[in-house]
Amino acid sequence: MVSTASPALDTLAARAASLDAADPLAAVRERFLLPEGVVYLDGNSLGALPAAVPPAMADAVHRQWGTDLIRSWNDNSWWDAPLRVGDAVGRLIGAAPGQTLAGDSTSVQLFNALSAAVRLRPGRPLLLTDPGHFPTDQYIADSVARLFGLEVRRMPPAGLPRFLAEEGERVAVAGYSPVDYRTGELHDMAATTRAVQRAGGLMLWDLCHAAGALPVGLDELGVDLAVGCGYKFLSGGPGAPAFLYVAERHQAAFDQPLTGWNGHVEPFGLSGDYAPAEGVGRGRIGTPPILSMLALEAALTAFDGVAMEQVRAKSLSLTGFFLDCADTLLDGLGFTAVTPRAPERRGSQVTLRHPDAYALVRALAARGVIGDMRAPDMLRFGVNALYITHRDVLSAIRQLAEVVMSAEHRDERFRHRTTVT
Amino acid sequence: MVSTASPALDTLAARAASLDAADPLAAVRERFLLPEGVVYLDGNSLGALPAAVPPAMADAVHRQWGTDLIRSWNDNSWWDAPLRVGDAVGRLIGAAPGQTLAGDSTSVQLFNALSAAVRLRPGRPLLLTDPGHFPTDQYIADSVARLFGLEVRRMPPAGLPRFLAEEGERVAVAGYSPVDYRTGELHDMAATTRAVQRAGGLMLWDLCHAAGALPVGLDELGVDLAVGCGYKFLSGGPGAPAFLYVAERHQAAFDQPLTGWNGHVEPFGLSGDYAPAEGVGRGRIGTPPILSMLALEAALTAFDGVAMEQVRAKSLSLTGFFLDCADTLLDGLGFTAVTPRAPERRGSQVTLRHPDAYALVRALAARGVIGDMRAPDMLRFGVNALYITHRDVLSAIRQLAEVVMSAEHRDERFRHRTTVT
Repeated sequence: MVSTASPALDTLAARAASLDAADPLAAVRERFLLPEGVVYLDGNSLGALPAAVPPAMADAVHRQWGTDLIRSWNDNSWWDAPLRVGDAVGRLIGAAPGQTLAGDSTSVQLFNALSAAVRLRPGRPLLLTDPGHFPTDQYIADSVARLFGLEVRRMPPAGLPRFLAEEGERVAVAGYSPVDYRTGELHDMAATTRAVQRAGGLMLWDLCHAAGALPVGLDELGVDLAVGCGYKFLSGGPGAPAFLYVAERHQAAFDQPLTGWNGHVEPFGLSGDYAPAEGVGRGRIGTPPILSMLALEAALTAFDGVAMEQVRAKSLSLTGFFLDCADTLLDGLGFTAVTPRAPERRGSQVTLRHPDAYALVRALAARGVIGDMRAPDMLRFGVNALYITHRDVLSAIRQLAEVVMSAEHRDERFRHRTTVT
Repeated sequence: MVSTASPALDTLAARAASLDAADPLAAVRERFLLPEGVVYLDGNSLGALPAAVPPAMADAVHRQWGTDLIRSWNDNSWWDAPLRVGDAVGRLIGAAPGQTLAGDSTSVQLFNALSAAVRLRPGRPLLLTDPGHFPTDQYIADSVARLFGLEVRRMPPAGLPRFLAEEGERVAVAGYSPVDYRTGELHDMAATTRAVQRAGGLMLWDLCHAAGALPVGLDELGVDLAVGCGYKFLSGGPGAPAFLYVAERHQAAFDQPLTGWNGHVEPFGLSGDYAPAEGVGRGRIGTPPILSMLALEAALTAFDGVAMEQVRAKSLSLTGFFLDCADTLLDGLGFTAVTPRAPERRGSQVTLRHPDAYALVRALAARGVIGDMRAPDMLRFGVNALYITHRDVLSAIRQLAEVVMSAEHRDERFRHRTTVT
């Protein structure tokens, strides 16, 4: 640990200034309305407000709903929004148009996608998932397995190759995340996709922690199915609609349980028998929450002219700089970095372990540095390369060091656990 | 048919003025932002914009999302919104607190509710539904039956008593709507609920066309399950979150397939095993679309201080007056009213049949009178008693008569069918 007023700090500050000055995405920060005095390192949980959203919402409410009323389904293209917004997400995840759909929550999309996968691979009794996967992915896999009389096997990514070699032909679908939501570890999407498909199973990626953060190249990798949320790195707003990707080759046989009328081939024919629409539009369910949908659509314009490779390069620069700052400023203060040091194994967040994680995250928040935590001892700091600077990162770590050194987090008001952090 | 400038018209105009002057809900109209020159008779499809929504949305976007960011899950009670908004809906459908939940779409809620019902009634192989039910209700019933290896029987309400007497003990759940979405006919909820339950089945009501339009008294009738949408008579905005009602006695055994992490007893414990929350909160699925949810919450304040009995009385006055106006002004013009004349058999809409329904609805819309149509020949006019006046009703019918008499609707621009009307 060094004093927070030291030559080492000066060196880091100079490096941050230099990296920020050379940042090709520096101007993109102006596309977000960030509150004064806040360092927001929780874009992996709820992305900041894009400047394009407030006028879009005002227009959606006043003109489209208030004035045009029901006519907006046609005149303001509400009906097409799930496919239009889906394609806008598709551009960020390497999906050619017509394969991505926006709507519902990740949990609902997972349910449809896993069920459809099981129907695409009849006779295969296993669903594979990661025991470290975000809980909803595990719960939904269990529920789908129960409905179809199948079995869920929880296999960490490291154990996949061996498992697939031994029991791969029994696997209907494998559902994994490229990025571990706790540690920020990035797994090898290409190798996993290949291994699952070589065994004859379908590969489903949950992109919640990847979409908008790094290139995932779904078409290029030949991924079968994917889902993800709209409110993390896509900055679509709280509970923004999720998305579903169905590779074109699977669409004609994609057979989902949530057969809502929006997915019907002729939704206004009002037939009592379900017949699915052509293409990924068959994944539609009920009437989508248009206000939240249009907020997501406006938010995605923050990516206009930005290549995911640029986002990735800056994200790695930020997380690498984060780890360097932590090495220098947090040394001896009880922290352990659990995010891998190798850039190719890092998502867009850095996770530190510390026994006082709860209190530290709360004390930092009181200073305007917003991260979050995951039980029992992980401090998570997500960097959204569209609006975070190296200076932000240094400020966060410097203040974290100050909090620990001054024992600020031991104050009574930071001891209570909150339901959501 | 009479001329639209006639003593009969004067009489109707005087009656409209008198009814509006005596309307105890007259001032409630000011709680809505209705566009100038529009008569909006499509509140049964998309309710008009409540005045409370724009400021609530601006606050949700700028302050809650933009400034408070992730902290809003606690500080602005986003986390509690589904239960809080659910209870606000509950007050309008006769549900004591703790039994109603807002979120997702009607289709998704139907799927969970029908599946949970099937699990509550094991060994019973039939799902009953109405062949005239809104398509999504039929599709979802078919899908649930397919997953559980059961059978759907489509039985019109009139045939229910006999069917239940003969095969009632085989029925797991019956899913019906109190109001026929095409004709506006109101069915007897009490008798149907009793008949289904006497046979040992569960009663599920789809309240899309009833919630906010008439009292439905779920607790009083002892209904088992209900769902409904937020965007029709509740005026919650396009694609507003739907709702789910689970009678308290069924909550402990309510076992839904969409086991998203928001419904977990300890959602931030992040366990890999699902354990449902206590109460109706177990019906939660994934992260809800907060912007759309808060719009619905603000919209529901339009009902503050308004009793559903008042809404019903005014609605019947409006639809009764509508039928009287139609009798007088549309006589001989080729229309047939299909909505029942008996008040106790009428929902909150009037449906007229006419061979030129499409063109007529479009020609009326060009004059600022907004209704909608359902194939092949039904003109639907929904009245929302919170903001529609008798004068509006008379204006709509008078203009409809003028359109037909002048053959205005035969203009080329009204001939194209639109995807949504």
